[in-house]
Amino acid sequence: MDRHLPPNAALAALRIDGARLWQSLMDLAQIGATPKGGVCRIALTDLDRQGRDLFVQWARGAGCSIRVDAIGNIFARRAGQDDNLPPVMTGSHIDTQPTGGKFDGNYGVLAGLEVVRTLNAASVRTRAPIEVAVWTNEEGSRFVPVMMGSGVFAGAFTLEHALAQRDAQGVSVGEALASIGYAGQLGPAPAVGSYFEAHIEQGPVLENHARVIGVVTAALGQRWYDVTVQGMEAHAGPTPMELRRDALLAASELVLEVNRIAVQRAPHARGTVGTMELFPNSRNVIPGRASLSVDLRAPDDAQLLDMDAALRAACARIATERSLQITVEQVVYFPPQPFTPQLVQAVRANADDLGYSSMDVVSGAGHDAVYLARVAPAAMIFVPCDDGISHNEIENAAAEHLEAGCNVLLRAMLAAAEVVA
Amino acid sequence: MDRHLPPNAALAALRIDGARLWQSLMDLAQIGATPKGGVCRIALTDLDRQGRDLFVQWARGAGCSIRVDAIGNIFARRAGQDDNLPPVMTGSHIDTQPTGGKFDGNYGVLAGLEVVRTLNAASVRTRAPIEVAVWTNEEGSRFVPVMMGSGVFAGAFTLEHALAQRDAQGVSVGEALASIGYAGQLGPAPAVGSYFEAHIEQGPVLENHARVIGVVTAALGQRWYDVTVQGMEAHAGPTPMELRRDALLAASELVLEVNRIAVQRAPHARGTVGTMELFPNSRNVIPGRASLSVDLRAPDDAQLLDMDAALRAACARIATERSLQITVEQVVYFPPQPFTPQLVQAVRANADDLGYSSMDVVSGAGHDAVYLARVAPAAMIFVPCDDGISHNEIENAAAEHLEAGCNVLLRAMLAAAEVVA
Repeated sequence: MDRHLPPNAALAALRIDGARLWQSLMDLAQIGATPKGGVCRIALTDLDRQGRDLFVQWARGAGCSIRVDAIGNIFARRAGQDDNLPPVMTGSHIDTQPTGGKFDGNYGVLAGLEVVRTLNAASVRTRAPIEVAVWTNEEGSRFVPVMMGSGVFAGAFTLEHALAQRDAQGVSVGEALASIGYAGQLGPAPAVGSYFEAHIEQGPVLENHARVIGVVTAALGQRWYDVTVQGMEAHAGPTPMELRRDALLAASELVLEVNRIAVQRAPHARGTVGTMELFPNSRNVIPGRASLSVDLRAPDDAQLLDMDAALRAACARIATERSLQITVEQVVYFPPQPFTPQLVQAVRANADDLGYSSMDVVSGAGHDAVYLARVAPAAMIFVPCDDGISHNEIENAAAEHLEAGCNVLLRAMLAAAEVVA
Repeated sequence: MDRHLPPNAALAALRIDGARLWQSLMDLAQIGATPKGGVCRIALTDLDRQGRDLFVQWARGAGCSIRVDAIGNIFARRAGQDDNLPPVMTGSHIDTQPTGGKFDGNYGVLAGLEVVRTLNAASVRTRAPIEVAVWTNEEGSRFVPVMMGSGVFAGAFTLEHALAQRDAQGVSVGEALASIGYAGQLGPAPAVGSYFEAHIEQGPVLENHARVIGVVTAALGQRWYDVTVQGMEAHAGPTPMELRRDALLAASELVLEVNRIAVQRAPHARGTVGTMELFPNSRNVIPGRASLSVDLRAPDDAQLLDMDAALRAACARIATERSLQITVEQVVYFPPQPFTPQLVQAVRANADDLGYSSMDVVSGAGHDAVYLARVAPAAMIFVPCDDGISHNEIENAAAEHLEAGCNVLLRAMLAAAEVVA
């Protein structure tokens, strides 16, 4: 299968409409718009319904048929010459963080819609059907697990498990889906021919290297831990330095060690302590207990296991040296997920053909595409976002970069779906 | 002035009644007793009144006259041969922490009462009067500043300032004093001939060295700081290690540096980070801001200033190396307070004469004696407490150690007050 477009002059000149894509993004961002320019459109709320309804209206307007599955994923289908072929799919999510931006997720969905509109305008017909998916509850702000819709679709967990989850008010996913009218049809997930997802990078690498397209080769595996350091609280005044069992001192060594574990495994490994709570957390009391989170990420499981071993060894060493207890409990594991080499190469080659600067990157965060890669050939296209900032109302991206990513998506999907007329 | 007792066989054999002292401690501990064996007797509450009333009743029963000053300090006076001489004073406090113990403060007050009872039983007459002081609100749990009664007495701050302080419910010190009937007479603080305070150590040094008496040579000076590290929050997944400005990483280096600053100035210097708060304190977000407290202590001001400079240099270095901002604000300063060498020697010599093991120690914590030392010759006597634990319901001390400390107090006070019959 040739992942380049056929050498057809008209097709080679085919481009998406960047202004139309931008306008779609701005229009959808009105639903749940925040005063600071961001979006608050939490999964399965009425605002989510309004966003879904707008997408469905646009997709129907572009000639697509709509299907909703039992976890509320929406599939907008542009028929192919042979509708028995598994579709070439793209998509992402339109739910946001409580103080989210206009681009995270929304870009991937509306880039898919823009591909459909572009094909319609140029009367391009494909052999395989094309589908644009809107995955339910990627963010996990209201209901966990995160990436819920794509997780159910890929069999990462069951539909029943997902539907039974409740928010802080006790409302279940099933109830919330029914209340917004997006509890769709039961049935097995249909086969997917290939899956592409365009997304803002949510990190600083592309901007830092001044590249337009990130060719995403893999998503990092993740191991998250709860670590507790148990020392002995004591008065800061009367207790000499050598008789202390200071939990914060041990925790601080561990923070530096977590950083070292990742730095030593450059460029892709990550190590982060994001939370720390001290007890009793009083100005003149030596901390008796420190609870912290550790987040380790790596592109392959061997490296991630190696980091796990280094973390546990560091905890054991620090505990012995400082005469205190350190417990380590793993609470989350996402395996590393390589994307499909042929599709990754299609992204890279089409970026080159279009004259966009690009570089290979890994995805440090989870995305719906990571679950889709379990059941279909899959790849992702990253574009830069300002200062790498996301999950923030000031999240921003350049229109020309969003347009470039969408052009790469168009060509990669056309190559996969095969142009017949 | 000879700080030993005169070589009189009867006086040399004079001892306090350890069982009577213990019983007083246990009786007073009934007022505000907690289920876990501790005491909750917050300053200027009705429980505090009950404790004060019991002490006054006991002191009157021992022939003392009672005087209460305008900040509620109680002085129980055993007349001397020459009542125009400034009194030899001892004392401490009977207010406790919310989850306090039976000995912190209470021991110093009841050891003073036991000295009076012992002198009465042996019909010992002193040239100077002897006074037992109960200082108001040493703990500061309900009203700040801490060591309020002794602070007013020593002129560390004004009576008006202290009376105007309010608790969390808006009740002022003046109102609370009046409501428990302990708003006493206005007037200048009378001169004090010398001041001794017996106290549990509230630290592990004596226990660790298996000594019975701590000869307290000085109280450490204290400088407290609020430190804020401002970095940049970012996603833990997509942000490579080399592009991070992780506030916790910088804060962790600073925690280790604060420890090093104190360890390098052994044995008396102390350095503690007791509190830390992270923002946004989210598991998969690199901390953008860390706020922490720093508590530095040293026995002399030159060393404390040297530590201050080392702290500021460390902050500047870390900020530069990690491309973030660190601000340092000093919020508290207590100067170092040496105790009076002649009185310190009296404590040391009398411990030796009595055959008690002793060692010189510094007081890492504040005590009423630290303020008294500003206006009178002063010294302190420490006795061990179990595991160095204090400000805790499980606070405990051995009856024989409490008895030993009280015997040292008796002899040091007699030497200062001069036995006349």
